[in-house]
Amino acid sequence: MAGGKKLTHLGAQGEAHMVDVGAKAESERTAIAEGIVIMLPETLRMIMAGNARKGDVLGTARIAGIMAAKKTHELIPLCHPLLLTKVSIDIQPEPALPGLRVIALARVTGKTGVEMEALTAASVACLTIYDMAKAVDRGMEISGIRLVEKTGGKSGDYRAGA
Amino acid sequence: MAGGKKLTHLGAQGEAHMVDVGAKAESERTAIAEGIVIMLPETLRMIMAGNARKGDVLGTARIAGIMAAKKTHELIPLCHPLLLTKVSIDIQPEPALPGLRVIALARVTGKTGVEMEALTAASVACLTIYDMAKAVDRGMEISGIRLVEKTGGKSGDYRAGA
Amino acid sequence: MAGGKKLTHLGAQGEAHMVDVGAKAESERTAIAEGIVIMLPETLRMIMAGNARKGDVLGTARIAGIMAAKKTHELIPLCHPLLLTKVSIDIQPEPALPGLRVIALARVTGKTGVEMEALTAASVACLTIYDMAKAVDRGMEISGIRLVEKTGGKSGDYRAGA
Amino acid sequence: MAGGKKLTHLGAQGEAHMVDVGAKAESERTAIAEGIVIMLPETLRMIMAGNARKGDVLGTARIAGIMAAKKTHELIPLCHPLLLTKVSIDIQPEPALPGLRVIALARVTGKTGVEMEALTAASVACLTIYDMAKAVDRGMEISGIRLVEKTGGKSGDYRAGA
Amino acid sequence: MAGGKKLTHLGAQGEAHMVDVGAKAESERTAIAEGIVIMLPETLRMIMAGNARKGDVLGTARIAGIMAAKKTHELIPLCHPLLLTKVSIDIQPEPALPGLRVIALARVTGKTGVEMEALTAASVACLTIYDMAKAVDRGMEISGIRLVEKTGGKSGDYRAGA
Amino acid sequence: MAGGKKLTHLGAQGEAHMVDVGAKAESERTAIAEGIVIMLPETLRMIMAGNARKGDVLGTARIAGIMAAKKTHELIPLCHPLLLTKVSIDIQPEPALPGLRVIALARVTGKTGVEMEALTAASVACLTIYDMAKAVDRGMEISGIRLVEKTGGKSGDYRAGA
Repeated sequence: MAGGKKLTHLGAQGEAHMVDVGAKAESERTAIAEGIVIMLPETLRMIMAGNARKGDVLGTARIAGIMAAKKTHELIPLCHPLLLTKVSIDIQPEPALPGLRVIALARVTGKTGVEMEALTAASVACLTIYDMAKAVDRGMEISGIRLVEKTGGKSGDYRAGA
Repeated sequence: MAGGKKLTHLGAQGEAHMVDVGAKAESERTAIAEGIVIMLPETLRMIMAGNARKGDVLGTARIAGIMAAKKTHELIPLCHPLLLTKVSIDIQPEPALPGLRVIALARVTGKTGVEMEALTAASVACLTIYDMAKAVDRGMEISGIRLVEKTGGKSGDYRAGA
Repeated sequence: MAGGKKLTHLGAQGEAHMVDVGAKAESERTAIAEGIVIMLPETLRMIMAGNARKGDVLGTARIAGIMAAKKTHELIPLCHPLLLTKVSIDIQPEPALPGLRVIALARVTGKTGVEMEALTAASVACLTIYDMAKAVDRGMEISGIRLVEKTGGKSGDYRAGA
Repeated sequence: MAGGKKLTHLGAQGEAHMVDVGAKAESERTAIAEGIVIMLPETLRMIMAGNARKGDVLGTARIAGIMAAKKTHELIPLCHPLLLTKVSIDIQPEPALPGLRVIALARVTGKTGVEMEALTAASVACLTIYDMAKAVDRGMEISGIRLVEKTGGKSGDYRAGA
Repeated sequence: MAGGKKLTHLGAQGEAHMVDVGAKAESERTAIAEGIVIMLPETLRMIMAGNARKGDVLGTARIAGIMAAKKTHELIPLCHPLLLTKVSIDIQPEPALPGLRVIALARVTGKTGVEMEALTAASVACLTIYDMAKAVDRGMEISGIRLVEKTGGKSGDYRAGA
Repeated sequence: MAGGKKLTHLGAQGEAHMVDVGAKAESERTAIAEGIVIMLPETLRMIMAGNARKGDVLGTARIAGIMAAKKTHELIPLCHPLLLTKVSIDIQPEPALPGLRVIALARVTGKTGVEMEALTAASVACLTIYDMAKAVDRGMEISGIRLVEKTGGKSGDYRAGA
C-alpha cells in the first residue's frame, strides 16, 4: 500500500461517491472468492446426507449465491451495475473444519472488476447454508470470506497467498 | 443436537420449502450478530482517519447493513418476509486484529426470528467496508460472522459462548 | 357474476388504485394454484434424468417459485404487500402431457388473500423450467395457470371445477 | 433435439450455474412471446368497457409486463442481466376464447437472447389482468404462454408453428 | 419545534439508525402528500389530449406512484417496512400553473406513519410524468412536494397550512 | 417545442411503451439535476450541527440518492436499464432558503440519456432528508427538482436557464 494510494470512494472532502469508470476500457474480468461455514460434525453429516437424497441445502445455497451476485450493486452502495456473463458457485464439504467451503466465480466483460460480485455470492451462499441448518445448530460461524484471485483490468492480476 | 431434530427447510422428500409459521405466536424477538473485517494496519488507520474527517466508510457501511436487513427475505430463499421494528449497526475499530468489528441488531414483533436479518446486516456491512477499502488492500478478510444472542420466540433465548 | 359486482381495482372514474383492505379482518388464508409446462418427451426425460442425478432443474424451479411469491407485490401493480407464512412448490412429471405440473401453495395470516402469490409462484416456476430446458426445446408451452383452491377470507372458499 | 444437445444450465455434475456468455458476440436480438387469459364473456365485456372509458385494466397490465421484463434476471435464477433496448406489450380482445391475447416483444443488443424477457413480460401482464378481474371471475385461466418468434444470435432464428 | 425535540434517526453518537417502533401501538394511519409538475402550456395540452384518447401518461404515472409507495423502505434508508392497506394517486391538470397536480394517499394499520410512502408515491408519479414528456419539454420542474395531512399515530394529526 | 414533436413513450394508438433505442449510438452522456428542501431555520441548524459531529443526515441522503439512481429503471416504468459509470450527490446548506440544495450528477456510456437517473437521485436524496428531519419539522417542502444540464447524445446539449 504505497503512500500515494487512497480510498477511492471518498471525494475531495471525504464524502462517499461512486467512482467514475467511464474512461476505463472494457475487458474480460474474472474474480474468485471463497468462504467457509464452520459447523458441528453432525450438522455437516445431516446436510450431506440430505444432499445425497435431494441436494437441496447445497442446491438452494448455490442458487441464492448466483442470484445475490446479480444484486450486488443494490446491496453495496457504491458498486457499479454490470452485466455479469457468468456466475458459478461450488460447495465442498471439508470434514476437517468441520464444515462447507463455498467458492464463487464471477465474470464480466466490462469497465469494472467483479470482486464484490464474487464476494457477495460467496457470503449469501454461506448465509443460506446457515439459514437452512440453523434449526439444528445455532453456533455455526461464517469465516474466511476473501478474494482468492482476480484477473483482467488495469490494476493487474491478483492471487491471494495460501 | 438431539436425534429428533431435523433440517426444517426440507420437506418429506427432502425438497426445499418455506416452513409454515402461521401457527406461531407473535412475540418480540431480537437478534444480535457480529462479524469482523481483518485488514492491514495502514488500512485501518486510513479508514479511521477518514472517519475523523467525514465518517463515510463507517457511515456508508452502517446504511448498507441496515438496508440489507430489510432485503433479507429477497436474498435468503426460504426466509419469511417480516416487519422489522428496529435495525442498528455499530462498528468499532480493533487495532489488535487489526480491523473493524461490526455488531448488528435486528428486532421484530412477529412470528419468526430475526437471526438471518442480523447476520445479513452484519455481512453486508462487512462487504461494504471491503468495497470501500479494496483499492488499497485486496487481502482483507471477512470473518467471525455469527449469532451473538437471540431473545424471544418459542425456541428460547440463545447466547453464544465466548 | 352478479350484476352488482365490479372490477374492484378501478376507481370512480375508472382509474387504477390499490383497494382499501384496512377494515378487513385478519384471518388465515391459503391459496393453491397450478400450471403445466408441455414439452417434447425427450425434454421431460432429460429433465427427470437430471433430477435423478442432481435434481437441479426442479430444485431451481422450486426456489424460483418460492422467491417469486415473495415478490408478487412488486410485480403486480395493485397487489398489497403481505407477510407470507408459508410457500411451497411441488413439481410432478406427467408423461401423458408430456410435461411437468407445478402446484404452488401460499398462506398468510392477513387482511387479503394470497391467490396472486400462488399464481405468481406457479408462473415463475414454469418460466424457470422453460429457461433451463430451452436450449433443447424452444417449443415448450406454459399452460393451465389457474387457481385450484382458496380458503379463508370474507368472500368464502373456492374450489375450481375439474 | 439431437443427441448431442444438453441442458446448458447444468454443470459437469449436474449442478445449476449461469452459462458463460462472455465469448458470444453482441448482436441485435428480438423475441416475441404471447399468452392468453381465458375468462367469462361478461368479464371480457366488463374489461373492454372499462377500457373504453379509461383503459386501466389493459393499461396497467401493459405497464406491469414492461416492468417485469426488466426484472427477468431477478426472477429467473440463471438468466443474465441485460440492457433491454425496447419492450412493448400489445393486448387484444378475442371474443372467441373469450378472453384477451397478450403479445410481448423484447429487444436487446447483447450477448444473450431475450426469450425469457418476452415470456416473463407476457406472463406478468396476464397475471395482472387476472388480479384486476378476479373479484368478478375467479375461474380465469392463463394459457398458451409460448415463444412466437426470435431473431438474432448464433442459434439462428426461430418461428413457432401455428 | 420545541427545544427537547431531536433528529430521531441519529443515535447517541450521531450515527444513523432505524428508530425502534416495537413498543408503538398499531393504529390506522393515513397520510396525504402532493406535488406539482410545472410545464409549458403546450406540454400540458399534449398530455391531456393523450389522456382523452388513451390516458396513458396519467395512467402510467399513477401506476408508478402506487408501485413506488410499496418500495419506500427500499429507497429511504431508515424507513420501516410496512403493510400498506391502500394507496391511491390522483392527478389533475391545473392550467394556471400550467401543469399537473399529483395527490397521493397512503394508509396502513401499523406501528409507524405513512408520510414517507405518500411523499415517495407523489415524487415518483411526478418523475414519471417528467420522463414521459421530456422529449418535448426538458424545462419541466417538479415542485411543492409536501405533506398535506396525516391522521393516526401518537404524534397526533397534522394538516398543512394553505 | 416544434409541431412535429410528440410524446415518445406513447405508441400509435397512444398506449405506453418503452422507446426503441437499439439503433442509437453509444456515447458518453452526463446529466446534472438539482432539488431543494425548504425547512425551518432551526431544522437546518440542527442538521448542520449533526453534520459537524458525524455527518449522518447528509451522508445518509447522499447514499440514498446514489442507490436510487441505480434503481431508476425499476421506478420509472418506461426507463431503460443502463450501466451508470458515475453517480455523485452534493448537498449544500443555503441559509437564505432556509434549507439544503441537492445536486446530483449521473454519467453513462450508452444509448440513452441519464436525465431520469439524475432527477431520481436528487428526489430520493431530498426525500431522505425529509425522513430524517420530519420528527422536528413536518412542514418541510421539496421543490425545484429540475434538470440543470445534460451533455452527450443526439438531441444535443441542454443547459437550464437561471
